[in-house]
Amino acid sequence: MTNTPSSDEIHRLDREHVVHPWHAMDAWRGYDNMLVDTAEGIYLYDGAGRKFIDGPGGMWCVQIGYGRQEMADAIAAQAMKLPYASPFTNATEPAAILAQKLVAMTPGDLNNVFFTTGGSTAVDTALRAMHFMNNNLGRKDKKIILAREKGYHGSTYLAASVTGKERDVSRFDTARDLVHFLPDVNPYHRPDGMSVDDWCDAKVADLQNTIDTLGADKIGAFIAEPILCSGGVIVPPEGYHKRTFDICRANDILYISDEVVTGFGRLGHWFASYDEFGIEPDMITCAKGLTSGYMPLGACIISDTVMERMTSDDPVLFSNGYTYSAHPVSCAAALKNIEIMERENLLDHVKSVTPHFQKRLQDLRKYPIVGDVRGMGLLGCIEGRLSKDGSRLSDERRIGQMLDDACEEMGLLVRPLINMCVFSPPLTITIGEIDQMFDILERAVDLVGQQMI
Amino acid sequence: MTNTPSSDEIHRLDREHVVHPWHAMDAWRGYDNMLVDTAEGIYLYDGAGRKFIDGPGGMWCVQIGYGRQEMADAIAAQAMKLPYASPFTNATEPAAILAQKLVAMTPGDLNNVFFTTGGSTAVDTALRAMHFMNNNLGRKDKKIILAREKGYHGSTYLAASVTGKERDVSRFDTARDLVHFLPDVNPYHRPDGMSVDDWCDAKVADLQNTIDTLGADKIGAFIAEPILCSGGVIVPPEGYHKRTFDICRANDILYISDEVVTGFGRLGHWFASYDEFGIEPDMITCAKGLTSGYMPLGACIISDTVMERMTSDDPVLFSNGYTYSAHPVSCAAALKNIEIMERENLLDHVKSVTPHFQKRLQDLRKYPIVGDVRGMGLLGCIEGRLSKDGSRLSDERRIGQMLDDACEEMGLLVRPLINMCVFSPPLTITIGEIDQMFDILERAVDLVGQQMI
Repeated sequence: MTNTPSSDEIHRLDREHVVHPWHAMDAWRGYDNMLVDTAEGIYLYDGAGRKFIDGPGGMWCVQIGYGRQEMADAIAAQAMKLPYASPFTNATEPAAILAQKLVAMTPGDLNNVFFTTGGSTAVDTALRAMHFMNNNLGRKDKKIILAREKGYHGSTYLAASVTGKERDVSRFDTARDLVHFLPDVNPYHRPDGMSVDDWCDAKVADLQNTIDTLGADKIGAFIAEPILCSGGVIVPPEGYHKRTFDICRANDILYISDEVVTGFGRLGHWFASYDEFGIEPDMITCAKGLTSGYMPLGACIISDTVMERMTSDDPVLFSNGYTYSAHPVSCAAALKNIEIMERENLLDHVKSVTPHFQKRLQDLRKYPIVGDVRGMGLLGCIEGRLSKDGSRLSDERRIGQMLDDACEEMGLLVRPLINMCVFSPPLTITIGEIDQMFDILERAVDLVGQQMI
Repeated sequence: MTNTPSSDEIHRLDREHVVHPWHAMDAWRGYDNMLVDTAEGIYLYDGAGRKFIDGPGGMWCVQIGYGRQEMADAIAAQAMKLPYASPFTNATEPAAILAQKLVAMTPGDLNNVFFTTGGSTAVDTALRAMHFMNNNLGRKDKKIILAREKGYHGSTYLAASVTGKERDVSRFDTARDLVHFLPDVNPYHRPDGMSVDDWCDAKVADLQNTIDTLGADKIGAFIAEPILCSGGVIVPPEGYHKRTFDICRANDILYISDEVVTGFGRLGHWFASYDEFGIEPDMITCAKGLTSGYMPLGACIISDTVMERMTSDDPVLFSNGYTYSAHPVSCAAALKNIEIMERENLLDHVKSVTPHFQKRLQDLRKYPIVGDVRGMGLLGCIEGRLSKDGSRLSDERRIGQMLDDACEEMGLLVRPLINMCVFSPPLTITIGEIDQMFDILERAVDLVGQQMI
């Protein structure tokens, strides 16, 4: 006899009292979210003990996998030694050492770390820092933020405002006046007959034309994910990042690289901005893989150049920050996470298993319901195909959910996104586990295809 | 020999690589924040092993004190069992049970918990929920947020926009158009000769007049702390909360009670809104004491009435939330924190030591530099006095910092706020420790008085 509540009781409490992110408001209190109880390695276990490969890796974040005793030990040790110290007035060893580690991983003069509680607050901070800098420089009108359709940057009011996804299906307000969106960069959506090189030229021209139209003196920053992950793992065409970065630099537009998903090994690098795409952003935002999700933590890493342009002889305060900025336990978790990733050579491991992961992904193209597959590193997406007359399959919008249901039945979780499903498993995944995962995906794609066609 | 860096080295790394909240931009890289290394009970220890009473209780948050082995154990156990699960798609036991606990503590039909990463994101969520509700009801113009001068609600762009503090000394932008500020409610600042009752009438009239001027059909919400803590522990006049609440209800203006500081025992109640002030808000935001600061966590608790008014037959999403919403380890920490507070009867303890704490605070009035002292529960503030000709003492703005320096010398930390200093020690503080704390405060007030006059 224990006091542990039954799965049914937990479902009831969750249904009656927990409002979930992206909750379907027509199904309020009518829907049971999957109960996750325990986890080990790349596997999650539900309330009934059923085992699933964690395809989404938590939420693009559990790099080192679950069940790491040394993470629990490091977290507990810091919670006993010093569970909290005000970041407004105090320095702590975990935060100082972690900041040193992060700036060593980032390119250029990105030497200054502002710790936050996750990705949304890191993005909010980056955008506010741009406001601060331009006010400090007397450029009160240089504030428009360029962002992209299908980009995802979080859900504070300001972070949601630069997010170019699915706004149509919600009732939230955004700060429309502060933002200008550039069109979809997805090569899969280029016009028939256009080459990818021409698509890249067109996407670069979208940025240049916007600057010409709005005026560089009105534009404060460009915020971009190296890969638009929540938008469906959209990999912009080769050369796009370097060319758009150069245009921003030439126009004194701050380049904010949102590496919340792509950081910490997802593409085989600590950060992808320079190591993969050759750019040195003015700010990098990160979170998720920073702690492998074991503790909430985010960071906005700022260049010396930007810091110096925010500096003033006046006693002006950088009045931004959170009670839980630089939380000592979160920073201790991040340090242990980085230590594990270093000791186990996880960056090299990702580089070594990526070709097999991406080959298994590409093999899915042979199924008729698959329109596109794409990915990079340990990121993957399957997008439903256009039907023969050029219109979408009638229930294409349900492909993501149908694949998710079919995979779940066979012991794999994926993340459905309308007509797509995406996955980003723990970085510790082995070749054998990659095969398990794609064997299930193949069967699911085949099954859903038979149901639909 | 260990690899532990020296205090000097930690200071150097902090100075060179950590950007702190409310960083003084004229002193960038020129200032050493106090290094906190370990903590136990109500005491912090710096890098040199010097011991300090933690007057601010972390940052108004460390209710149960430091060094709690069972907190570390509960956190480690959850980190091993399930360190992360996506709140977008999953239910977990810690989140479901915690939500049940929270709704049992709150009044009225506040039955729905949206978990966040701290106070700022809880406030951001509450304000966005108001947007969502009024858009859903077709009231697109009913969006202005009423807030108050000296109020503090966080530092996301939207939370900072409803904060009425010290905006003059920063260079950040805020969403001015979305907010209307009501004037200072501090009884200490009422005109000479006015009674507190008349001051209350005037403050209630400020709200009513604003509604009459702007129009109730343009105002979405009123956000208010029961006590304006970061503004200097301002306790509004008796009756103010109930009367302003009734006016909001009569005008269909959502009342958001920001209990980030006043929740979890600070005033001897789980929440102060109803138990102390007799109101049943539409939403309550909380954070800080929820986990005693051991883990980042916040919550926006929403009434059934508001949830029902956000519901729709359309497939509309509540597209707000964070990777670290309902973090299982944070929720496990909150559950253990609540268990400890219950087992040790901390609410009763606060009620029992409050009279002594508040008496020792009131005794400071006898010193000539003290203009006002005020507080409630285990919250206190000392505000520098007006000089005899009615003007402020010339260096009054430095009183807070001078008191802080003098107290630190004697082993007590307080929080300086311009001409004030505030304190909110761990709720476990004993009568003897309260005496230690106020003995130091008395000597510091005396000493600073001698330096100034």
